[in-house]
Amino acid sequence: MKKLINNPNQVVNDMLEGMVAAYRNRVRRLPGTNVIVRNDAPVKGKVGIVSGGGSGHEPAHAGYVGKGMLDAAVCGEVFTSPTPDQVLEAIKAVDSGKGVLLIIKNYTGDVMNFEMAAELAEAEGIRVAKVIVNDDVAVEDSTFTTGRRGIAGTVFVHKIAGALAERGASLEEIEAAAKKVVQNVRSMGMALTPCTVPAAGKPGFELGENEIEVGIGIHGEPGIEKTTIKTADEIAETLLNKIFDDMKLEKGDRVAVMINGLGATPLMELYIVNKKVSETLEEKQIHVHETFVGEYMTSLEMAGCSISLFKLDDSLIELLDAPADTIALKK
Amino acid sequence: MKKLINNPNQVVNDMLEGMVAAYRNRVRRLPGTNVIVRNDAPVKGKVGIVSGGGSGHEPAHAGYVGKGMLDAAVCGEVFTSPTPDQVLEAIKAVDSGKGVLLIIKNYTGDVMNFEMAAELAEAEGIRVAKVIVNDDVAVEDSTFTTGRRGIAGTVFVHKIAGALAERGASLEEIEAAAKKVVQNVRSMGMALTPCTVPAAGKPGFELGENEIEVGIGIHGEPGIEKTTIKTADEIAETLLNKIFDDMKLEKGDRVAVMINGLGATPLMELYIVNKKVSETLEEKQIHVHETFVGEYMTSLEMAGCSISLFKLDDSLIELLDAPADTIALKK
Repeated sequence: MKKLINNPNQVVNDMLEGMVAAYRNRVRRLPGTNVIVRNDAPVKGKVGIVSGGGSGHEPAHAGYVGKGMLDAAVCGEVFTSPTPDQVLEAIKAVDSGKGVLLIIKNYTGDVMNFEMAAELAEAEGIRVAKVIVNDDVAVEDSTFTTGRRGIAGTVFVHKIAGALAERGASLEEIEAAAKKVVQNVRSMGMALTPCTVPAAGKPGFELGENEIEVGIGIHGEPGIEKTTIKTADEIAETLLNKIFDDMKLEKGDRVAVMINGLGATPLMELYIVNKKVSETLEEKQIHVHETFVGEYMTSLEMAGCSISLFKLDDSLIELLDAPADTIALKK
Repeated sequence: MKKLINNPNQVVNDMLEGMVAAYRNRVRRLPGTNVIVRNDAPVKGKVGIVSGGGSGHEPAHAGYVGKGMLDAAVCGEVFTSPTPDQVLEAIKAVDSGKGVLLIIKNYTGDVMNFEMAAELAEAEGIRVAKVIVNDDVAVEDSTFTTGRRGIAGTVFVHKIAGALAERGASLEEIEAAAKKVVQNVRSMGMALTPCTVPAAGKPGFELGENEIEVGIGIHGEPGIEKTTIKTADEIAETLLNKIFDDMKLEKGDRVAVMINGLGATPLMELYIVNKKVSETLEEKQIHVHETFVGEYMTSLEMAGCSISLFKLDDSLIELLDAPADTIALKK
């Protein structure tokens, strides 16, 4: 294992210190926790938006803390759910009296720990709502999940919920909008190489020299099939078709597209994937309102990508276009 | 070689098509060329800023085309200088009558081809100035270079020259400011793994299982030494010390810092590197005005990083802070 780290058991702490040192003008770390909050939290008159999960998916989620997106991100150990007490600290730090929305990727540990934190917070008189993101169409039930997994489409939930919260909407309104995003976003990924959790010291799975895994999870959970490497066009088509099977899109529909790198894939290759995605959507006369190409939800140094489609309407477009000023996403 | 591509000989074309498809509202490709220009080029009353070089360093340079940075980027084949005729097309497309500044990384091929294009443009009556960036303190003379190489510090030249051009400054003023950036920016990199040029099909060099290369170039050119992997703290210290040897920094000085990923290094590891960099600068009482952590100038899927320090004064700070609205850098 060759990594730019000091101690495999301290990577999350070291990362958070380096991150806060870089962006002191934007975010701070709650003392004694792995929670990153925006400097001005709690923002008066605004519902707090909290997300998080295991680390190793950077810039998710701490990179999305800031005006127009999250108020706090709770950073677990690598690929490990954060504990309920940490989530509770985040909730308390961002509640201004209007309540807090938790955006949870659908992994059994995350759901359990965030729900437990919600109960603890409610016992302290804080109103908490939650939305569970399960955009990955690859498989039902998986290594760490009952039901579908939550992957890169989660970033769209952050964006829409965050924009609405910034306008002073109520907890109920924001919860409803976030659930509407979940109903309208679908993703699927694939990997060319595995990744290594620092504390484990070896890759979480293996792929042959010419082998890829289609439908892989962001922690290396099994996908649909291992197969030999195909062209970028064929891979884009496979991922898109599985998404189309699940989400009815019709001529004239409007979508946002995310071509997400999993960590070790050059931007060049993500653009090559987008070429086919954009051509396919054009053929189907589906209008692309906006395309996001880059690393939004990674899996350490895994090579591969995911494609997300987010079906839009006028109100979602307005919120997607609204200002955001975070480390990883600015509008 | 496992890559998300269609044809190894068409990666630049496919990439540019996918890129323009994603960002049609921002940039266009000059027909029949590999030149990306901002949609509103040539901008009336503004000096044109052109950069470029071999592809494979994305988001450099096309990701920096836009308001406040570049007017055009000329994209060569992977790790290969663009031809003079392509550079000439870029110059002609962005000249509004106030002249054009070429920002060239110091590689023999780039310097020769950009200079030839400058002569051709001047023969057509366009005023052209140029600045050659040589921020890499690792080695003098290298595989493709006489003198020092130009690497990630080039992005600071784009930023400062672009900001000044946006204010309507003259070609001479912008050239002088760009040269001032070159005098004040120093970088050094290291690699954990090599990368593979698609058309070559195999890695450009080799590193052992526990081996790293310190001072490597962004095309895999040899650095100072191959050594066994060290901690992130030790690596940061090695790179910083070589930079400090070359650039006198004193208590009270102000700098911008860039921790640049070479392509396959997780953001987590770049933050861990920044922890040590920020601590070291704090000990030396050097004030960090701004830190950039991410992928700014990559080497395909090479794992590793570079550190750049850019010494600032009041006028440089004002230009660094000025608005920029490009794909890869927004302010």
